[in-house]
Amino acid sequence: MSDIITFYDIPSVNGTGWSPNTWKTRLALNFKGVPYKTVWVEYPDIEALSKEIGAAPTGVKGDGSPSYTLPTIYDPKTKKAISDSQEIAEYLDATYPSTPLLFPKGTLALQIAFQEAFTTAALLNLFAPLLQESVTVLNEKSAVYFRQTRETTYGKKLEEFSPYGAVRDEHWAKTKTGFSTVAGWIKKSGGTFVMGDTPSYADLSTAAWLLWVRQVRGAGSADFKAIQAWDGGFWGQYLASLDKYTKPDA
Amino acid sequence: MSDIITFYDIPSVNGTGWSPNTWKTRLALNFKGVPYKTVWVEYPDIEALSKEIGAAPTGVKGDGSPSYTLPTIYDPKTKKAISDSQEIAEYLDATYPSTPLLFPKGTLALQIAFQEAFTTAALLNLFAPLLQESVTVLNEKSAVYFRQTRETTYGKKLEEFSPYGAVRDEHWAKTKTGFSTVAGWIKKSGGTFVMGDTPSYADLSTAAWLLWVRQVRGAGSADFKAIQAWDGGFWGQYLASLDKYTKPDA
Repeated sequence: MSDIITFYDIPSVNGTGWSPNTWKTRLALNFKGVPYKTVWVEYPDIEALSKEIGAAPTGVKGDGSPSYTLPTIYDPKTKKAISDSQEIAEYLDATYPSTPLLFPKGTLALQIAFQEAFTTAALLNLFAPLLQESVTVLNEKSAVYFRQTRETTYGKKLEEFSPYGAVRDEHWAKTKTGFSTVAGWIKKSGGTFVMGDTPSYADLSTAAWLLWVRQVRGAGSADFKAIQAWDGGFWGQYLASLDKYTKPDA
Repeated sequence: MSDIITFYDIPSVNGTGWSPNTWKTRLALNFKGVPYKTVWVEYPDIEALSKEIGAAPTGVKGDGSPSYTLPTIYDPKTKKAISDSQEIAEYLDATYPSTPLLFPKGTLALQIAFQEAFTTAALLNLFAPLLQESVTVLNEKSAVYFRQTRETTYGKKLEEFSPYGAVRDEHWAKTKTGFSTVAGWIKKSGGTFVMGDTPSYADLSTAAWLLWVRQVRGAGSADFKAIQAWDGGFWGQYLASLDKYTKPDA
């Protein structure tokens, strides 16, 4: 173990992250300016890694056994392994309070609720197409695991999640409507971000979902270009304002 | 018109308010300590009153014509009539910035999202039973109007919204689960309220929904006592902490 935080992320074929939940943690680490190094972990290796470093499970599998996920960080300062993006964000604010706060005083409950509201409004119809496509940017070892586990959980082939044509078109149309609702909330702040002129975790979490689209579909894809243009270009400008927090650790 | 704000509310048979949306405005006015007087308006009279004082419609009816709702306030200071509880709350903070803020700096977008998240998590299954029962506390003139308009909109008798037995039991069970989720968010603040030790609009809005249950089912009803006891008594204590803002204007 090094003397800085180790951040365990899932690699894409491009050598970058792609998972929206691990993006939340990378954005949070960069926003706070806390030094860290990335260790890339393929899906089938997450459980053994988690047990090795003492990271708690974040849920249960269909068979009732514990489920281990990334992001996870290991912090040599406290000798703690923390999993779950929200838990990590709260840990970082508590442990590094003199760096910029992800949750400005008094806003933790509000920011948790914002993420819930964003999920309901904007993500419900994005999940199917993006889950279906995510497998295309995974390394072989993870791709096999991802397909097998998702198809078992949902009882259908990945290609049936959001087939091109009417189903896919409806998913995107509803996603667009939902993002427009959220853009309306953010614009109420009077600034660029949810809380005004300074980003907070609600913004980083929201950006993480946009990065999911950018990494999985490609920065030059029609899908990502469409999102950038939604709401009069709001989402393109929003992500551009946060892009400096997407940098890798080195 | 008097020289203080006029607050237009819908009366129950008990001579108090009962509508969750008008409760939000009464709680907001009392929280800010802005003087006002209540004018009680029965449902069939809302449209004519709104047009008379220049209050904007808040939606459209099934036939495409404008729909007028309460709460509405008329403020002689600015000579403006404002309708819609969220619009009124934002107006009050903007017009009376030296009184306690409903939306502390930077939190307006977050507080809007909180209300959305609360609706999805906690209210979805409360609407049917409470809409069904609300008619029981309305004066005759409003009761007839309320039943007719709701039954036309939803295409069924009020008594079919949440029939006693399995359907009603499931609505309450899901409501309990949802309130537990929201209690979890609020407890994250480390204080009594969403933002900690001081109430904000997210709390007043949440309390308004609890007051709906208290006014429609009765303070001594099994339904209201059940909610007060949920989450280890959390909701009973929460509403008790906010009860001072429920006072009438006189």
